[in-house]
Amino acid sequence: MRTLLVVLTVVFPVFLAAAQAQPQLNLMPMPSMVQVGTGQMPIDRSFSISVTGFHDASLDRGVKRFETQLSRQTGIPFRPKPGPANPTLVIRADHGREQVQKLGEDESYELAITDSGAKLTAPNPLGVLHGLETFLQLVQPSVSGFTVPVISIKDQPRFPWRGLLIDVSRHFIPLDVLKRNLDGMAAVKMNVLHWHLSDDQGFRVESKKFPKLTGMGSEGLYYTQDEIREFIAYAHDRGIRVLPEFDIPGHSRSWFLGYPELASARGPYLLEGGGIDPIMDPTQEATYKFLDKFIAEMARLFPDAYFHIGGDEVDGKQWDANPKIQAFKQAHGMKSNQELQAYFNQRLQKIVAKHHKIMIGWDEILHPDLPKTIVIQSWRGQQSLAMAARQGYSGLLSFGYYLDLMWPAARHYAVDPMAITTTTTDAAATLTVEEKSRILGGEACMWAEWVTPENIDSHIWPRNAAVAERLWSPQEVKDADSMYARLNALSLHLEWLGLTHRSARMRMLHRMAGTEDISALRVLADVVEPVKDYTRWDDSKGPIDFHAPLNRMIDAVYPESDVARHIHDLVQTYVQGGFKDQATEAQIRTYLSAWRDNDAKLHPLLRQSFLLQELTPLSEDLSALGAAGLQALDYLDKSEPLAESWRTEQLALIDQAKTRKADLLLMVVAPVQQLIEASGSPVR
Amino acid sequence: MRTLLVVLTVVFPVFLAAAQAQPQLNLMPMPSMVQVGTGQMPIDRSFSISVTGFHDASLDRGVKRFETQLSRQTGIPFRPKPGPANPTLVIRADHGREQVQKLGEDESYELAITDSGAKLTAPNPLGVLHGLETFLQLVQPSVSGFTVPVISIKDQPRFPWRGLLIDVSRHFIPLDVLKRNLDGMAAVKMNVLHWHLSDDQGFRVESKKFPKLTGMGSEGLYYTQDEIREFIAYAHDRGIRVLPEFDIPGHSRSWFLGYPELASARGPYLLEGGGIDPIMDPTQEATYKFLDKFIAEMARLFPDAYFHIGGDEVDGKQWDANPKIQAFKQAHGMKSNQELQAYFNQRLQKIVAKHHKIMIGWDEILHPDLPKTIVIQSWRGQQSLAMAARQGYSGLLSFGYYLDLMWPAARHYAVDPMAITTTTTDAAATLTVEEKSRILGGEACMWAEWVTPENIDSHIWPRNAAVAERLWSPQEVKDADSMYARLNALSLHLEWLGLTHRSARMRMLHRMAGTEDISALRVLADVVEPVKDYTRWDDSKGPIDFHAPLNRMIDAVYPESDVARHIHDLVQTYVQGGFKDQATEAQIRTYLSAWRDNDAKLHPLLRQSFLLQELTPLSEDLSALGAAGLQALDYLDKSEPLAESWRTEQLALIDQAKTRKADLLLMVVAPVQQLIEASGSPVR
Repeated sequence: MRTLLVVLTVVFPVFLAAAQAQPQLNLMPMPSMVQVGTGQMPIDRSFSISVTGFHDASLDRGVKRFETQLSRQTGIPFRPKPGPANPTLVIRADHGREQVQKLGEDESYELAITDSGAKLTAPNPLGVLHGLETFLQLVQPSVSGFTVPVISIKDQPRFPWRGLLIDVSRHFIPLDVLKRNLDGMAAVKMNVLHWHLSDDQGFRVESKKFPKLTGMGSEGLYYTQDEIREFIAYAHDRGIRVLPEFDIPGHSRSWFLGYPELASARGPYLLEGGGIDPIMDPTQEATYKFLDKFIAEMARLFPDAYFHIGGDEVDGKQWDANPKIQAFKQAHGMKSNQELQAYFNQRLQKIVAKHHKIMIGWDEILHPDLPKTIVIQSWRGQQSLAMAARQGYSGLLSFGYYLDLMWPAARHYAVDPMAITTTTTDAAATLTVEEKSRILGGEACMWAEWVTPENIDSHIWPRNAAVAERLWSPQEVKDADSMYARLNALSLHLEWLGLTHRSARMRMLHRMAGTEDISALRVLADVVEPVKDYTRWDDSKGPIDFHAPLNRMIDAVYPESDVARHIHDLVQTYVQGGFKDQATEAQIRTYLSAWRDNDAKLHPLLRQSFLLQELTPLSEDLSALGAAGLQALDYLDKSEPLAESWRTEQLALIDQAKTRKADLLLMVVAPVQQLIEASGSPVR
Repeated sequence: MRTLLVVLTVVFPVFLAAAQAQPQLNLMPMPSMVQVGTGQMPIDRSFSISVTGFHDASLDRGVKRFETQLSRQTGIPFRPKPGPANPTLVIRADHGREQVQKLGEDESYELAITDSGAKLTAPNPLGVLHGLETFLQLVQPSVSGFTVPVISIKDQPRFPWRGLLIDVSRHFIPLDVLKRNLDGMAAVKMNVLHWHLSDDQGFRVESKKFPKLTGMGSEGLYYTQDEIREFIAYAHDRGIRVLPEFDIPGHSRSWFLGYPELASARGPYLLEGGGIDPIMDPTQEATYKFLDKFIAEMARLFPDAYFHIGGDEVDGKQWDANPKIQAFKQAHGMKSNQELQAYFNQRLQKIVAKHHKIMIGWDEILHPDLPKTIVIQSWRGQQSLAMAARQGYSGLLSFGYYLDLMWPAARHYAVDPMAITTTTTDAAATLTVEEKSRILGGEACMWAEWVTPENIDSHIWPRNAAVAERLWSPQEVKDADSMYARLNALSLHLEWLGLTHRSARMRMLHRMAGTEDISALRVLADVVEPVKDYTRWDDSKGPIDFHAPLNRMIDAVYPESDVARHIHDLVQTYVQGGFKDQATEAQIRTYLSAWRDNDAKLHPLLRQSFLLQELTPLSEDLSALGAAGLQALDYLDKSEPLAESWRTEQLALIDQAKTRKADLLLMVVAPVQQLIEASGSPVR
């Protein structure tokens, strides 16, 4: 470990050069050390693998999977070559890995490719799995055939905990969908699936002790224990831990359909309807007896050392309204519901520990009375995390990594677990080395209010890879342009794993249109994004209807528009070049003309389908923007300032084009605005 | 049945009118009787189903599948509604179906949709399954929501045997790929999967009696008996029989790796290498003892009443070279190898019959010494089929339905089992009613020399649906334009079943290019087709290498170019309109300009990848064609005849653009040629 770190420091400038000068190196996450040589190693039908050193059935399956994947990527049907004399790729793990994957197990590997062969070495199979994913990302067609570059890579993660939370309560996500997402996680070297298994809207795990949990709280949509065991084995094969979360004492309405006696208020309870009021009664012993039995069962089912008890967003309304609970608080001298929750968490922590698990929960569970063994998952931010570390608690960052907020990848990418922003004060700057080591990593979060099995892939991918890189790669790797270039390549790469983050959109557009030719609809879909943060819904609309169809444009489009980013970059280039770069102007004009002409093409389609009608004003705005942008360019070409009245008119258009419509934002307003504003400037 | 036929005759004009005036009725195959009413029935969250009359677990699964499929198509998550008071769709089957699906079981159904409800009735669940597929094809988004039209349909198949042969020997096709193709077959009401399970290149079924069949003859790529039973149950649930074929005595090299004693010449045998010489020895009793035991085992595994023994393309070289076999022929007074094969088939037929199966084989097995119970599958043509029928044999047509020949859908569509062509003499015209009834139907054939699990879907779909319609719909349904309009809609519809006939192409283009932006490559891919018939390979190149990668452009493109058909139609319209239709001309110009400019865009990409380099001349041709076409239009606009020298030059270009390159044909040469030729004509 020590040697590797020294090497890292020395070779780092080489890596930076490589990352910047060679955008064709489509690695994501970027390894900690890369030295690019000259030449390539061919990948052809003679490709063969030899596994020396340690191996077991799980590693063998990993190697087989690699071979299948390499075959998919190249179209070459590799045939079994038992004990090849001159293997193309030699794999060597020194020793085995833990039966149950442990936090902090060595995940490092070294990959050395010459023009005649490759060698992948690692202390244990976890590193081998990561190295094989790196190898797959290096494969490219060249003039002579498929190749990988001559290269030397030494790699290890920055943080030991790199997770993705998937909420399967708000919308049930079947195992096949989760499995392809595990494949995606493995491709970007994430190692924890945080499975948010219960919430107000559904309880998703079979309990043999308490069958009414799913019997009444799941609408029949849950995983059996056999399925869960098989799923955990699938994850283990891919170097991924499965962390179960059962969110209590709040977010627990689904428990109360079968077991209303656990709740702080009399039922009956229904899955439908909103509010987060339903909450467990922490003042009765029966609650702890139930939880003891339940956690005993789940602790056996889920082998991971950690057990997530949620603990977030406890709205104490039911506690306040229950005289028995008020009396309990008074009798115990508790001044707030926070103190009552802390009491609950202390009791809970003892139960979790009794069943040999480490308790983990959201920010709210942090309380000095809890032992330092617990882990805090922070949705509040790095300062909160640093504060916990200073108090002796380990922690994870999820603030800034909420994929359901529809942020661009670059915004997630800029969030560092150790720093408030990438440029200003480090939150962790004043921490000791030991305190810093308590910041274990982070987790991207896919909350499922607005996703279904159909569109969840496109809400996770490719943006999740930006979080994965933040958690794996050296802190210094943070150039957003390089990230986007590699993210695009990765997005294609992920297609080979069966993820539907690209293909589902097309199917959904076809559904909305009911016709084969959707080219004009696609032009519009390419430049809009869903509204951001939690603005899709607000309480004035009543509770979210979790059974409503998610088949509108907002559900189909990508969270981030590549076209918008592209036109934005083009206009920057054009403006910075003093409006003289004709090639760039031509590219801008191509976009603008297509938009200007698009509404006429799209209009007949929009009229036909109830799912498209709401897009009419957006389509009109886009055409108006295209026309305005072209006029601005015409004026710029003539180097004559535009009439002020025209500009005023256009800027009014811009203003209204910025407003949300059909819960969508037109993402190409700003660059057109920039052209219009420039057209009025006398400084040319 | 009789009543229905009367109705059919009476209402037929209505159906024709409906099919022609209402192209939005995207039904395929077209039902035998359709009456379209006015109005629609909404499909919304309240949609519910009630199954009255007969039902069993298989039908229940079919209804559940329908509901899942309807949910996918609409994005509406239907929730369980036990015993709805006012069901939207009432399903009623009078009685059950056979445990083992029988040829000729009643498959009829009636579907009546009003604006407030729908009723699907059928004698048995087979008709219900077909009716549910019809219903799914009727669902469309409208201004008010998803709807189905008010309609009345009475439907039944023209032929009882409507099959698809899939060869899994030349390239092994895994069960998940076959299953999605079964889903596709069910969608177009095909009812037989003909499973070509053994051939020279591989033996694909586990035999417990003779384990070396797969142990040495499959390279590990085969189906276990458990998997086969599960697969047959999957097919049965979808109203599809599974017909096994073990091709003997020829096409049997794979048998001889494990059991060389069955062959007519001493081995050793290898799967690699070519030739169809290896053939069973029909003169030794050991062969029949082996086949008796083998067929006994397979007859138990495959419940279908029919058993296909192949029997095609017996090249007698090994017989001629074996003195023992020559002596046997002499001793039995056999004058030809045909007679020897007939002897083999007679022995074989007795074995097959002993195990309670009806023997079916290719044309070559037809011989007067065989009992009339056997079935002939004709790759030779309708006359051969009619002749067999006259002699008392039942038969199936596969001539004209070979999907591997890369014909356009319209060409398959024009082939009728009862007629030589759709316009001239009926092959079956002189047959009696009884003789005609012996023509059971037909089968599309997907021979697998050039397909893999990756591209087999696009080689089967959507063209297979044209064959399905030919075999299901009334003979009079044969308008190619209507077929293509409905085929396009069906192609989209099939996407919801998980078929990859469209998505795989994009992935393959991305693989070839190694880059994200493949728009220029797609322009080229859209206008080429693979070479036709058996011209991709000839014997001068040696034997086909069945382990070679199939990752070239020819493997990625669709067998039929929609764009080529479109531009062809546009030019027809333009020419027939006396070159005056400006809207059509504008559409033609859009295509031509895109082609003209495409080579410059594509060129950098073509240089980068070994898989693209071979496309350079095609890309250049396409650009030249675009330019020439535009010039021709310019001259036509001016109404001046072109210089003869220009025309001569352009026609030389045309000639060379017609030649195959990279095993591809540029399919847009003819329409450009037409424009050039028109530009020289003084008749304007």
